[in-house]
Amino acid sequence: MLRQPECRGNSLAGASGAAGRLSPRALGLWLGALPAGKLNDLTDVPGVTVGHVSLIRGQGPLVPGQGPVRTGVTAVLPHSGNLYRRPCRAAVFVFNGFGKSIGVPYIRETGLINAPILLTNTLSVNDVANGVIDYLLRQNAKIGNNARTPDIVVFECDDSYLNDIRGRHVKPWDAVLAIKRAAAGPVAQGNVGAGVGMSCFQLKGGIGSASRLITGKNGRRFVLGMLVLANFGLQEDLLVNGVPVGRLLPAEASGSYVPGSLISIGITDAPLSSRQLEKLAERTVLGQARTGSLSRPGSGDFALLVSTASLSECESVSDWELDGYYQAVAETTAESIWNAIFLAETMVGRDGHLRRALPLGETLTVIRNWAGGLANGAP
Amino acid sequence: MLRQPECRGNSLAGASGAAGRLSPRALGLWLGALPAGKLNDLTDVPGVTVGHVSLIRGQGPLVPGQGPVRTGVTAVLPHSGNLYRRPCRAAVFVFNGFGKSIGVPYIRETGLINAPILLTNTLSVNDVANGVIDYLLRQNAKIGNNARTPDIVVFECDDSYLNDIRGRHVKPWDAVLAIKRAAAGPVAQGNVGAGVGMSCFQLKGGIGSASRLITGKNGRRFVLGMLVLANFGLQEDLLVNGVPVGRLLPAEASGSYVPGSLISIGITDAPLSSRQLEKLAERTVLGQARTGSLSRPGSGDFALLVSTASLSECESVSDWELDGYYQAVAETTAESIWNAIFLAETMVGRDGHLRRALPLGETLTVIRNWAGGLANGAP
Amino acid sequence: MLRQPECRGNSLAGASGAAGRLSPRALGLWLGALPAGKLNDLTDVPGVTVGHVSLIRGQGPLVPGQGPVRTGVTAVLPHSGNLYRRPCRAAVFVFNGFGKSIGVPYIRETGLINAPILLTNTLSVNDVANGVIDYLLRQNAKIGNNARTPDIVVFECDDSYLNDIRGRHVKPWDAVLAIKRAAAGPVAQGNVGAGVGMSCFQLKGGIGSASRLITGKNGRRFVLGMLVLANFGLQEDLLVNGVPVGRLLPAEASGSYVPGSLISIGITDAPLSSRQLEKLAERTVLGQARTGSLSRPGSGDFALLVSTASLSECESVSDWELDGYYQAVAETTAESIWNAIFLAETMVGRDGHLRRALPLGETLTVIRNWAGGLANGAP
Amino acid sequence: MLRQPECRGNSLAGASGAAGRLSPRALGLWLGALPAGKLNDLTDVPGVTVGHVSLIRGQGPLVPGQGPVRTGVTAVLPHSGNLYRRPCRAAVFVFNGFGKSIGVPYIRETGLINAPILLTNTLSVNDVANGVIDYLLRQNAKIGNNARTPDIVVFECDDSYLNDIRGRHVKPWDAVLAIKRAAAGPVAQGNVGAGVGMSCFQLKGGIGSASRLITGKNGRRFVLGMLVLANFGLQEDLLVNGVPVGRLLPAEASGSYVPGSLISIGITDAPLSSRQLEKLAERTVLGQARTGSLSRPGSGDFALLVSTASLSECESVSDWELDGYYQAVAETTAESIWNAIFLAETMVGRDGHLRRALPLGETLTVIRNWAGGLANGAP
Repeated sequence: MLRQPECRGNSLAGASGAAGRLSPRALGLWLGALPAGKLNDLTDVPGVTVGHVSLIRGQGPLVPGQGPVRTGVTAVLPHSGNLYRRPCRAAVFVFNGFGKSIGVPYIRETGLINAPILLTNTLSVNDVANGVIDYLLRQNAKIGNNARTPDIVVFECDDSYLNDIRGRHVKPWDAVLAIKRAAAGPVAQGNVGAGVGMSCFQLKGGIGSASRLITGKNGRRFVLGMLVLANFGLQEDLLVNGVPVGRLLPAEASGSYVPGSLISIGITDAPLSSRQLEKLAERTVLGQARTGSLSRPGSGDFALLVSTASLSECESVSDWELDGYYQAVAETTAESIWNAIFLAETMVGRDGHLRRALPLGETLTVIRNWAGGLANGAP
Repeated sequence: MLRQPECRGNSLAGASGAAGRLSPRALGLWLGALPAGKLNDLTDVPGVTVGHVSLIRGQGPLVPGQGPVRTGVTAVLPHSGNLYRRPCRAAVFVFNGFGKSIGVPYIRETGLINAPILLTNTLSVNDVANGVIDYLLRQNAKIGNNARTPDIVVFECDDSYLNDIRGRHVKPWDAVLAIKRAAAGPVAQGNVGAGVGMSCFQLKGGIGSASRLITGKNGRRFVLGMLVLANFGLQEDLLVNGVPVGRLLPAEASGSYVPGSLISIGITDAPLSSRQLEKLAERTVLGQARTGSLSRPGSGDFALLVSTASLSECESVSDWELDGYYQAVAETTAESIWNAIFLAETMVGRDGHLRRALPLGETLTVIRNWAGGLANGAP
Repeated sequence: MLRQPECRGNSLAGASGAAGRLSPRALGLWLGALPAGKLNDLTDVPGVTVGHVSLIRGQGPLVPGQGPVRTGVTAVLPHSGNLYRRPCRAAVFVFNGFGKSIGVPYIRETGLINAPILLTNTLSVNDVANGVIDYLLRQNAKIGNNARTPDIVVFECDDSYLNDIRGRHVKPWDAVLAIKRAAAGPVAQGNVGAGVGMSCFQLKGGIGSASRLITGKNGRRFVLGMLVLANFGLQEDLLVNGVPVGRLLPAEASGSYVPGSLISIGITDAPLSSRQLEKLAERTVLGQARTGSLSRPGSGDFALLVSTASLSECESVSDWELDGYYQAVAETTAESIWNAIFLAETMVGRDGHLRRALPLGETLTVIRNWAGGLANGAP
Repeated sequence: MLRQPECRGNSLAGASGAAGRLSPRALGLWLGALPAGKLNDLTDVPGVTVGHVSLIRGQGPLVPGQGPVRTGVTAVLPHSGNLYRRPCRAAVFVFNGFGKSIGVPYIRETGLINAPILLTNTLSVNDVANGVIDYLLRQNAKIGNNARTPDIVVFECDDSYLNDIRGRHVKPWDAVLAIKRAAAGPVAQGNVGAGVGMSCFQLKGGIGSASRLITGKNGRRFVLGMLVLANFGLQEDLLVNGVPVGRLLPAEASGSYVPGSLISIGITDAPLSSRQLEKLAERTVLGQARTGSLSRPGSGDFALLVSTASLSECESVSDWELDGYYQAVAETTAESIWNAIFLAETMVGRDGHLRRALPLGETLTVIRNWAGGLANGAP
């Protein structure tokens, strides 16, 4: 489907998708002004690891409990130590609360996260949470025996268009496996982990990631990485760099619309307070907006921002220096979402439901011809 | 321990505790100005049902996974129809977010609740949630198959002082059983359901309930019922009708302090909007405060308010008429908490941990002699 | 009206009201467990100063613009330096938003306050704000000339039952005068400053204040002071130490009910973060509840908490140590409200509107005879 | 400066700027998928009127109190009846609270607005508020005399780069005049009213407006109109239809950066509840993001959404139908901001400070040549 487009980006950072798929950066699109990190993904933040378990089994008609299975689980660990004993500063922003993610109120109250961050499908949240509890109880013999219980954090999107979601095929041990697999190095993107069965703009969605480097006032360098689970929107909503690609591509590209959600996980090594991280979490909306998201009814748009800096480190970044982080959040959220749809491959799910991959060649043609609408007229 | 006090209340409404235990109302204490409903509990609200599953097994040293077990699960159903298909207006207020209850953001976003309300211990939230999912999937074949997923609502407190909480002894089928057992009629209180292993003011806590009748401007009569899971506070915090009972009773009455939480579930048949229900939810704090709660660090104080009125019924109660509901919320929250500790019995849990019941006779003596501190000096 | 009650309190701290009026502490009532500061008022916090301008002129029928005038303005300064240049950490909690106070969003965004705190009547907010702007512009030549504008913070209650509020008799220079008068030493309470025309529980309300000492984990001693502008509630709501005094006193004591508000200003020298100060601000509700407040419709219940510790001082108090501050907030808010009504004197305002002072003798009798309702039956 | 570009838009709706200035719609840019209203501005909503008072006097060095004056006041009236007696449903969303606008908490509490909406500069908020009070007191003899006080709503941005803001040249009577001038018909945009002295992207900003038509499920047609006061951003932030125009234009176009704000006032005749209006208010961020806003530190980004439908009309629009309104909010917020900068003219203010108008010809060239960054390389 894709003829190799002119690719002027001299780095393939962030392009670690499936064969034949390329990130917008690899395709030469402009993706903002800040420099990306080495891998242009969440693991550019020192110590951060990501693990996926992808579950893809069966085809044909839906038989609840049997399949077809198109789902998975993704684990994000802010550091590889004991998170229960060494929590991180964190903040959550819920732009659209139509979601069933768990663990939010505790983060708001304490400004801390003390467990691995998991992503999965809506009905598997509790099995995944039980896996995290298994993992943490084993790691920490004191929990529930004169020591506090941890706050389990599981985010979700609804993959029921492709997946036998009623079957709850993600099991507690899959969550533990995702945690154990968590590793540094390039983050697999597209149809992977929690992203396996997700849709975005009525096209194939899933996992996307990006990063940016920020230089503080005193020259100190920090990284901000983002990972999204992108599962929202009508095709007609899709903007790429302001171009209404969704309206300019043929409509037949897309299947039925099912309301979905967007989960954005941002991590930085900058010593920001939870009050400041909340401001960053809010700015994910700025990135989401650049992709054309309307945060439609039924969308659970949750953003979590975490700092890996030591808790003992004082609030040392002035609010007036937050611009760079805001820009990094806006740019990485947008790029992560675009990465998810550029890198995801076409997938057939339950009942023959089809989610096509974004047609990269046509997309580039449409973008090249757009000229702000001035040259070609409105879609 | 208890000599029968002079009991001037001519109704035993709300007194359905264990043998030898009596509610403050039965004991003759003044509990506010509004008339209580017939049973003075949550089931006074037409259609509301409550079911408990209590799990009490074993004694002696804690062997995680084996016991001793002092826990349970409580189900509250706003109506006995299909909640997924016929949701209710609802609102949540989180006064202290140090808790791991799930289902909050969706209620905030939509102003609706579309699942039974469950209460249990902290580490069993996900097993209980899985039970609710089992129940709802069975009841609604369309969920996840071209129909939206429900928002599972499970509130929790930490009963680890008495219970083998690591053992996660509440199973999904216990949640289903609690839902199936849900019935109208007097609500069992004290050491029952989710309340089995709970502590309050370093004494035995658990489930409490109360209700009030409100007369609207046009003479229409409505009921507001409250049910709490009371598991918070130091003994020294306890106020009963303003009397610092906790400070006046001997300190040896109590065991170790473990930070706990308060869950308040209020339901009314008045046609209030979710915006108005949120104001009611906020007023649970007024009732909680009357019992001396400081909402200490580590306490997850969550309030859920639900209206059983039809969704099609317009917002017909003016904000200016909400006073009566505010008063009902303040009075029932306080009385429910007092009911929990007056009706709960002494319990021995894991590792011989002991939570004594509030000594009723001494409490009455202390109250009778208090006189605002004027007669006896400060504690 | 008042026969001298048995006064067992050996300190008159907090009793600095008008002739014949005594604080509940001076009258011997128990007011919580924490020790009060030296003066038992807001100025116990080192560096904090309070200034009042009281406007009382004319009597008889209301002639808008002429009087009668029963109003004023109160200024609270966290420190006596340049607040614009040396702001303080701060947080606001709005329990009931039915109010027209200004300056809230900026404090929420920045966690800072950079102007004196003013209190006045509802329609004079903008004249008072203009006075603060006059004061700050004079003090800071750079404002608006390459330097940011300050956030003006003025809280208000409605004194229109006694006062010609339409006349807007508080002028900008009265605000400046209140700031200039701000001094350490005993805070005048009752009918003074912004409290001149206020009502509480259909009795005379106004300004009240109290303080508590808190000992941190390492033995460091901190003070928390509270000042309230109390202007809310029906007589029947009034609780004193849990005794329904409002219901037990004769109803004829009170005039018409006009919905009012409660403003609570708390200051501490402890180095709390704005996130922590927000938790303290929330706990003012616990104190308000102890006085019987239902936060009725039409009440604007705003709480501001400020720390005078240096901004450069790191967040050094653990959340787990906040209990003492919570207790201090609950106790001082309640005592401040009671101080306001115990110390305020009877006042006749416009159109002969009468607000009686709380009858102290009868109140003590009623409290002494109460015994939790057990001895005398419910009101 | 501007050679007439190819203008393919066949309507000049929204182009009512100064001589030589043209809106992006008039210039042929694509501005979203929904149809604009007849005038493409806020007054397309039946009954809504807008009035401006522009104050432009003097030049040369700043002499505080004398000038130069570059400021004004804008009044928006949701209907031309008595707003105090016939309030409208309303909601506020504060994305960035670094602002000194007043009247927010009351709208949040009640879901209502009961006064005209005014916009002005930061230090004139209180004089403008006093003008609104003058106006309302005159119109409503009962206020403050046995009837409640209104909630005065004044939004602000900081125009001190061009204006003698310390001089507070906007007087109460200017606010009254703006209210009296409020009229239907094309809304003057750019350097007018509160927009006179505002800057945006280091270029000249000010007032902008746009509207969209929404068709409800049952074929009922509604309008949503937006009016912004645009005063934020660095030149490098500016995106027009995704094109980084701010980076592609020469930097010398712009003067110093002063942190500013964005005020968005949206009104619709659809019968939305305040809960739903809040969701719309949140979506202004989606529009703001499309213009490249990072909501930088120091920006007070406040959105007010109002419904002119009768209060007695039941909540009749399902949440599932809100998409159209979300799209309308996103499109009108973005187009209003672009209108403000496309229509505003170059202005010289105090101390010779210069804010250039966006160079329209260069902007079109830059857009035409962009092609998603693919053709020309990144800026």
